[in-house]
This record gives sequence, structure tokens and C-alpha cells, in this order.
Amino acid sequence: MAEFVVTFHPNAVSSRVAEGTTIHEAAAAAGLPLRAPCGGQGRCGKCAVQAGVGVDSATAVETRLFGEEELAAGWRLACQARVIGDAEINVPSASLLIEHRIQIEGVAREVLVEPAVTKIPLRLPRPSRDDASADLNRVMQALGGGVRPPRAIATLRQLPGLLRASNYEVTAVVSDGVLASLEAGDTTEACYGAAVDIGTTTVVVYLCHLPSGEVVGVSSGLNPQARYGEDVISRLQMAISEQKGLTKLSGAVRKLIDDLIGQAASDAGVARESIYEVVVVGNTTMCHLFLEVSPIGLAAVPFAPSFSSAQTVGAEELGLRIDREGRVYVVPNIGGFVGADTVGVIISSELEDSRGLRVAVDIGTNGEIVVAENGELYACSTAAGPAFEGARISQGMRAAAGAIDEVTIDHDVFCHVLGDVPAVGLCGSGLVDAIAEMVKVGLIDETGRLRKPEETGSLPEKVRQRLVQNDKSLEFVLAGAEESGAGKVAVSARDVRELQLAKGAIYAGIGLLLDKLGRKVADIEKLLLAGAFGNYIRRESAVRIGLVPALPAERIESIGNAAGAGARLALCSVALRRKAEEVARRTRHVELSEEEGFYSRFADAMALRPMADTAVD
Amino acid sequence: MAEFVVTFHPNAVSSRVAEGTTIHEAAAAAGLPLRAPCGGQGRCGKCAVQAGVGVDSATAVETRLFGEEELAAGWRLACQARVIGDAEINVPSASLLIEHRIQIEGVAREVLVEPAVTKIPLRLPRPSRDDASADLNRVMQALGGGVRPPRAIATLRQLPGLLRASNYEVTAVVSDGVLASLEAGDTTEACYGAAVDIGTTTVVVYLCHLPSGEVVGVSSGLNPQARYGEDVISRLQMAISEQKGLTKLSGAVRKLIDDLIGQAASDAGVARESIYEVVVVGNTTMCHLFLEVSPIGLAAVPFAPSFSSAQTVGAEELGLRIDREGRVYVVPNIGGFVGADTVGVIISSELEDSRGLRVAVDIGTNGEIVVAENGELYACSTAAGPAFEGARISQGMRAAAGAIDEVTIDHDVFCHVLGDVPAVGLCGSGLVDAIAEMVKVGLIDETGRLRKPEETGSLPEKVRQRLVQNDKSLEFVLAGAEESGAGKVAVSARDVRELQLAKGAIYAGIGLLLDKLGRKVADIEKLLLAGAFGNYIRRESAVRIGLVPALPAERIESIGNAAGAGARLALCSVALRRKAEEVARRTRHVELSEEEGFYSRFADAMALRPMADTAVD
Repeated sequence: MAEFVVTFHPNAVSSRVAEGTTIHEAAAAAGLPLRAPCGGQGRCGKCAVQAGVGVDSATAVETRLFGEEELAAGWRLACQARVIGDAEINVPSASLLIEHRIQIEGVAREVLVEPAVTKIPLRLPRPSRDDASADLNRVMQALGGGVRPPRAIATLRQLPGLLRASNYEVTAVVSDGVLASLEAGDTTEACYGAAVDIGTTTVVVYLCHLPSGEVVGVSSGLNPQARYGEDVISRLQMAISEQKGLTKLSGAVRKLIDDLIGQAASDAGVARESIYEVVVVGNTTMCHLFLEVSPIGLAAVPFAPSFSSAQTVGAEELGLRIDREGRVYVVPNIGGFVGADTVGVIISSELEDSRGLRVAVDIGTNGEIVVAENGELYACSTAAGPAFEGARISQGMRAAAGAIDEVTIDHDVFCHVLGDVPAVGLCGSGLVDAIAEMVKVGLIDETGRLRKPEETGSLPEKVRQRLVQNDKSLEFVLAGAEESGAGKVAVSARDVRELQLAKGAIYAGIGLLLDKLGRKVADIEKLLLAGAFGNYIRRESAVRIGLVPALPAERIESIGNAAGAGARLALCSVALRRKAEEVARRTRHVELSEEEGFYSRFADAMALRPMADTAVD
Repeated sequence: MAEFVVTFHPNAVSSRVAEGTTIHEAAAAAGLPLRAPCGGQGRCGKCAVQAGVGVDSATAVETRLFGEEELAAGWRLACQARVIGDAEINVPSASLLIEHRIQIEGVAREVLVEPAVTKIPLRLPRPSRDDASADLNRVMQALGGGVRPPRAIATLRQLPGLLRASNYEVTAVVSDGVLASLEAGDTTEACYGAAVDIGTTTVVVYLCHLPSGEVVGVSSGLNPQARYGEDVISRLQMAISEQKGLTKLSGAVRKLIDDLIGQAASDAGVARESIYEVVVVGNTTMCHLFLEVSPIGLAAVPFAPSFSSAQTVGAEELGLRIDREGRVYVVPNIGGFVGADTVGVIISSELEDSRGLRVAVDIGTNGEIVVAENGELYACSTAAGPAFEGARISQGMRAAAGAIDEVTIDHDVFCHVLGDVPAVGLCGSGLVDAIAEMVKVGLIDETGRLRKPEETGSLPEKVRQRLVQNDKSLEFVLAGAEESGAGKVAVSARDVRELQLAKGAIYAGIGLLLDKLGRKVADIEKLLLAGAFGNYIRRESAVRIGLVPALPAERIESIGNAAGAGARLALCSVALRRKAEEVARRTRHVELSEEEGFYSRFADAMALRPMADTAVD
């Protein structure tokens, strides 16, 4: 058979193909893939190109699609036109297939955008005497074999009116391979999804443009469940024991998420109806409360959750006002206290494929730890977090205006306060900083004891004066009333103890998980600090008090909200969604309190000193 | 490897099997299949047998399941116990797997009962330190790999409370391979479904016990849509043009179906919550109206329906109060005017597999015709029916009390009236009978003309007197006011014409479909008359006027409500449901009015005489 050269402009690339090859195939052979949302059936018109000589004459499909002038100008569908000689083809950029790859900030992973929800424009043949097939068959046929018919009766009910009103030009919304709904005209670009990270304290919503994977809006708010209990345990108790407790907790967070979606959408100028999917991560309890599934098994040993696999639910059923047929996908959990958020951390930092030894620590209201090497994954959680978000610390607070977030001590105490306001409390990074500085100058010894004023004779006077014995206990004043302009802000002996408990648990957890792989701290190739805390904490301080292992600086990396990044990846890539499901099954969940030696290791890890290896070595 | 003989009592059947074979396998080898709803995982306890020597010792699963006394008495699970020597096994009848085959009355087909909804009893292991997996995983694992997790969030929400309240002994309701819901304890026997035949005039509900396939209750009522229009066309018009017309028509029939289900269930002592599936047949318009899908395309050429494939919808969405997760399966349609009811006729009379030439005629409010030979299927519909259900006949009525259903004419006219009441009208079989008798005695000629009194001199006086010329037209009085005890009942010249139109359409339809196969009336191996009409009509009368072909009596068979039988088959057998879907795709739909030669054939077929072959021969 004869072969011909087809050249494509403006790129001027070409391919040599056999006679009868479609322009679409010839373009692919030239490394210039063209669009084919209708599967090359000549229905959507998205692969239009302009051809001169060397192609056959227009097919019936094309004469229907193009006007006379267009045909005269050589416009053809690349999927229909066939090569009959050496040809020159102009390719408008709209016909080029662009594979979107996105880079989630703070994350190494590059991902091929391939969302579960796609839109396919269709130009359908009208019913005729030769083809009196049903409206639904008409649509399904145009979609090709890979798409399953709608499950929702509403979609079928909408069909006959829509087809006739839209001149048989519609856009199919395909969700996980099922025809979810149809829209009049070509609405392919109006296609959005939301990734939601439900933290015990903070909820973040990322609004994403699905065809490109780009984030077009972000909104966040405090988890309103906090009014019923600051930590996970108190909410678990309320959900289980209080009449309507579960409903209240669930309704509160769903209302917030709906509001945050609305806010992100309105900021970005996106209609709620153009949002088709919501992907959710959170810890296991948050996932239960969000779906209004009783977490009763999580309240006592052996901490069996009600579900751990991924769940898909209609958005309407959860009170989220997006597209009528929109869905919510909840990323799977690993175990009772290691949730979908940790799965998000794993997939966004590519831990599951990591060959070298990596450790990720995500400190939110809880602290989750993952170790990974050669595809082996272990995870645990510690109730370590609250100290870093202000709970149980006498003047603790979140990292908001008025929070001391940095402390330096030399001849006096210098504090940095967030926002242009007087200091009113101490956030996590400020607490770590304050205690690390107090250890450095000798105000606190390695066991965590706050020295008495009479033991600190060698310290500068301005520093010494800040050690105050009040009626309850000893405390160290960071900002007096006159300095702060508001109240006094101080660190108490009890606060130091709280920090020790938290950091002891985390460090002991890291050690125990490393044991599972037969490894030591020194073997860690990369330590990833996830969460806002990881971004804001001063590394030297964390290392000085042994909150994180004493590793060379280049081996420690802050990866930001890795759980939220994981949600975005699962939203924009079905491949990563499947990977998340596999990771959740594969990751081994370690229940620290059941592990032999945990408590002695924990006690050792409470010491306030740099830790080059796990405490029991 | 050693082989041993295992003998099963009380049947005393035996098999020779290799050492280590399970008793379950050995029983199957002996032709005595045992139950295994849990898939042989030792979870359900349904395959309990009593073993003496020759089997290994009880496994952990069994010691957990049986009490000490039971174990001492030799109770074992057939799926766990393995052969280690010649063995004697007692099999209680409860452990035998019974394959239910049902015979639908009036239908040749025997079917293996294999409903889409099955119930599987489960005894689940409790969560423990060794197994803290999620509640849902626990259930899915017990169900084995073939069942997919629940789609309904309500099922997940119910799970944690149910497991704990029911001592981890539950019954899974599996619907089309998906875990639909869970119930406390063992509820396997309380498992029902409803088959619904939506006729344009009458709606019938059959309540079936799914595990056995038996019908436990029947209820029926008049289609309340009739108040908006007697025939399909007027309801189509109302659905399309009247504001809320579709909603009214749909609501009316769905309300009736819900009432009929309730009535059948209450008569049979079955709780509505124990009904898990409803299977629906009806003509294409009835299916559209039932699902509240606009039939707009059916109102004009080319009569494209909105859907023709099978549809599955939540029962709740359609207002049918059965199990909360219950579903409605609507059998697929063939084309615009050949619907799911015709698919029901085909599968219940095994037309799709017929080798010889078979013709089925289903006369309800419409008349549908199917011809089949060697797997080839053609179908058409005619608007012939109403005449036989009383519409457009001056004194027509349904076959109810007061209807004349049989007529004989010799020296006088003798009428049989349904019920112990005076005659008030004429039902379909009475009309056919009356006209056939009038043809026989010469009151009507072959062209359908009612003779004038002066032309009937040779007839008995008592018969002649009944020919009355009133101001409108000529009529023949079957029952005068004095005879009937009520009003006069007569056949008018116009009624004769209506009957001719109806029977002409049917006969022409049969002829045209036979043409497609290159066959003639004389080739028909079996003519099947479906519908109530087929049961009640006097054969000789139908043959005399050429309503049905003049075939030897043994080739004509009445098959009753074959559409309803088809619905029951699709309810009780997934294999036949799949077959129905295949039949709907495969059957070629012939639009009579588009066929060349239809009208001349129709005109010829209007003659009132026995017809040995199609009119154009």
C-alpha cells in the first residue's frame, strides 16, 4: 500500500503513514495527539482541522457538522478524514490534546490529571425513520462502550426535554464511568471539584478545575465541632452517648463544608452547579462524624472503626449543595486512629513507592507517624497534638493574631507576636521555641524541671526576674502586662510537662515504627514534617528538645498540608485514588499502647535534649 | 493418596473421595448438594451435619459455633470437616440445598429459581485485639469476594448499632451482587418480591416468595389513569401537553401499585419491609408514565421512546413502600409501541429459543404480535385492542358482571351474562361471538354490512324482529329491555365496523410479520393467544370471522397473562432477566404504518370470513 507524508502546522511536524490512515492517527504518529472526547465517532467536532490536498472528501457526518463555507475552507474532522496523498494540515490549538500534569505545591509528586468526573460534548443525530432508537440509546451510543447508563432516574427524566430544547447538542457528565447527567450545549470547561481536609481543629476546602487540575480557590474555617469538645475523644464520647450527638456533630461540620465550598466557588466565580465531586480526607473519627456513621467501636479497645474502606455518597444526601448528581468520595482510613488524612500524606509524598527510609510526621490535633521503606509502610497515631494547637497549655492558642510564635532568650526575652496586636498567648511553634530557649539558657533541666529562682544566679537579671512563684506553681513570664499591652503571657511548669508528654509520644512512636523495619533514626533518608506546624516550627528548637530527631538539616523537609494535598491528588487522578485505596489496605497500623516497651521508651523520650537515636538505644 | 467411602443418611447415598476432602464436597459428589450461603467459610452454620468416625477433629470455627454437647454428639460443619477414613454422615434436611424450580401456570417454561435478591445469614467474629478490622470489612469478608459493598449510606449508618445489638448474628440482603442492607438475626425466609403488569386498563400484582419462586398473593385493580383517557394516545397527549399531566398520570398508577402491593402482602401475612424488589412490565408508554419520564418522542413519527433499556430505580423514589433499600426493575422495551409486556410474553412462552414457527398475539388495550422462528424475532403493535375491552363499541364494557360474554343464534338469540345480574353491555368475547353468529346466520355479509330487515326474509321471525332501524342507524338487539330486565343491549352497524378495523389490523400485522420470515399462516406451528381475551374468546367464533387464522385447533393455545408471567420470571430468575434484556435488543420492531402494502392488506383482512392465509395471497 502507498505511503504518504502528512505535515502538521504550525508545528511543522510530520509523519509517514499508509494510505487510508485517519488524520487523527497520522497526527498521533507525528507526536501531536488531537482531542477525541467522543471516541473518534465524529460526534463532538473537537478534532476539527483544516486540510488542503491529500485527504479524501468529507463524510456525511462532516457535511452535517460543518457549514458550506467551512467545508469550502477545507475544515475536516481529523477522526473522519483519511490520507490519500501527501498532505498539509493546519491544527488549531483548540484541537490539540493537552495532557495536564500538575504539581501540588510542597509535594514532589507530579500527576497526570485524570479526574473521576469528565465532560464529553456530544452532537447527536436526531431521531428519524431510519433510526427511531430511544433517546437514552442515542446518548449511550455516542458515548461509546466505556460509559455505563445513568443510575439516577432524574437524569433519565431530564433527557427527552433537554435533547429537544438543546438541538441535540449536549454535554455528558461522566462520573466514574457512569453517565451522571447531561447539560445543554457545550459546557466542558465548567467542570470543578472540591478537595476537603477535615481537621479536628481546622477545615480546608480547595476548589479545583478538574480538566486542568488547577486550584482556583481555597477557603478554610474552624471545625465547629470544637464547641462540643476540643479533642477527638470528647467528640467520640458525645457521638456515642448523647442523644442526637452524632447528628449534631455531623451536621455542624457538613454545614461548614457547604459554606466553605460556597465561599471558594463564589470567590472564583464558579457556580455551585459546576462542582461535580467532593473528595474528603480526615482522621478516622472525622470521617465517621462527617458521614454520620456511629464511631462506637472507636471508644474502647480494640478500637475497631465502623468502616475503613473508601465511601462514595451522593452530595445531596450529605447536604452539600453542588451538582444535583454530584458525589462525595471519602478517602479510605487505615485503622481506628490512623485515617484518610494519613493516606493523603502518604500519597502526596510518594511514601508508598519510596525505596529509601522515609518518615513522615503530621502534627495536627493528633500526631500521626508513617515510616516507609521499599514499599513497606507502618503507621501509628499519638494523642500528642493538642499541646501544639494550644489545648492543655495554660496560655496556649492557635497560630492567630496575638500569639507569640517565636522566642529568643539571651540578656532578656524577645518575643515575636503574630499580627499587629499585643501578645495574648502562645502558639505551638512559640511554645517549642520558648521551651527550647529555656533549656538552652538553663531555666529548664533535661528532665523538664523548671529551676527555682535561687538556682539561676548565673542568668542575666532581666531573665531571672521573669521566674515567678505564684500561689499555684512556678512560671516563666514571656511578656508582662506592661510589655504585652494586654495580660501577662507565661510558660508554667505544667506546660513544660505537657510538651514533654506530646513530644515523648511522637519520638517514641517514631522509634517503635523504625523498629518494625529494623532501622534506626540515623538511617532516615528523609524526615517529612507535615501540617502547618511543620512549616512554622523553628527546626533548631525542635531538634534541641528532641521533638524531632537530630538529623542533618538537609534531611528534614516541611511538606505543608500534605493531607489536603493528598485529597487534591485523589480528586484529580483516579490512578492516585486507586493508589490511596491500595495504600490504606497495605499500610500496617500499629497500636502504640499495645506494643511491648512502648511506655519505657515513651518515658525516656520525654527528656529535653537532642536525640540522635531512639530513646532505648 | 488414600480414598475413603462416605455414606450419607437418611438417603444412604455415598461417594468415594480422597483423604482430606471436605464433607461438603463429598456430599456434592454423592449427588446431595448441601447449603453454603456463607460460601463455605464456616460462618453461617447452615451446613451442619452429624458425623461419627472417619472425620478429622473440630476446627476453631466449629468449637466457637457449636456448644459442648453438640460437639460431643458429633455435630460438624460440612464445609470444615474433612474425611480421614470411611465415614457415615447424618444430614438433617435443613442442611440440604434445594434447587427450586417453578412452573408458571399456563407457561411451558420451567425455571431455576435464582432471584436478584438473596439473603445470607452471617455469624460474625467479634472485634478483638487480633482483629480490629472495621465492622464493614467484617461483613464483607464473611460474604466472600462475590458481593460488592453497600452503595447506600443508610446501610453503613445502620451497621455499628445493628451488629452490637444482634450479637453479631445478622442476615445480609444482597441485591444484584451488592450488599443492600442487614437485618438482625436470621431472616432468610422472609424474602419477597412483587411482579407487576401495568396494563392500559388493568394492573396486576403478583407477590412472590423469592427463595422458592412461589406466588403467595395476587391483587389487581383498574388503571386509574383511565379517568384521564381510555387509550394510550390520549394519555400520551395529556403527559406531553398538560401542565403536571405526566406527574398526575404517574402518581395515579404508582399509588395504585403501592396499594395493590399492600393488599397482596396483607392478604398473605407478609410485611411490606420483607419485600425487596418489584419487577414491572407494561407497554412502552406505561413504562414511561410509571417512571415519570416524558414520552414526548412517542407522540409523533418516528415514535422514538425516551428509553428502551431496562431501568433500575429505588422503590422509595417511586413512592413504593417496600424495604427501605428495595428496588424497582423495569423490564426493557422493544420499541415505541412494543413494550416490556411483549418482552414478558416472549420470555414466558420461550419464543426466543423456539425453533419452529410460532406466533403470539397479546390483545389487551393494544394488540401486540410476535413471530419467532429459529431465534429470529419480529414484533409489531396495532391499536386494535380497545374494541375488545369495550371502548368505541356502543354498548361495550369490560368482562364484568352484567356483560354478555357468549351469544348463540338459531331460532332466537341466546345470551350468557356474567354474574347473576341483568345484561347491561357486551364484553370482547361477547362481541366476537355475536358478530360471528350474525355472520353465520346471514345477518351480516362478508364485507361487514348489516343486512336490512327486508333482506332477511329467510331468518326465523324471533331473530328478524331484533333488527331495528332507529333514527341513527341499524342495530341488532341481543337483549331487549324486557329480556335483560335492565336496558336494551344491541350491536350496531358501527360496532361491526369497529370490530373489523381491529381484527383487520391484527390479521394484517400477523401477515406482515410472517412475510419477514418468508412464511405463511399455514406454516404456523403454534399460535399463542395471550391475555384474558385469549382465555375467554370462543375459538370457533374467532376463526369464523378471521380474527385468528384458520388453523387446526391443536395448534392454537391460550397462554393467559403471559406478560405478567414474564414479569414473574424476571423477578425469580436473573438468567431470564438477562434473557429479557437480550430479547429486547434482538427483537426487530416493525412499524406497520411504514410497511409497504400494509393498508391494502389491512383492507383485505377486514372481511368477515375464515382466513387460511394472509389476505394478499
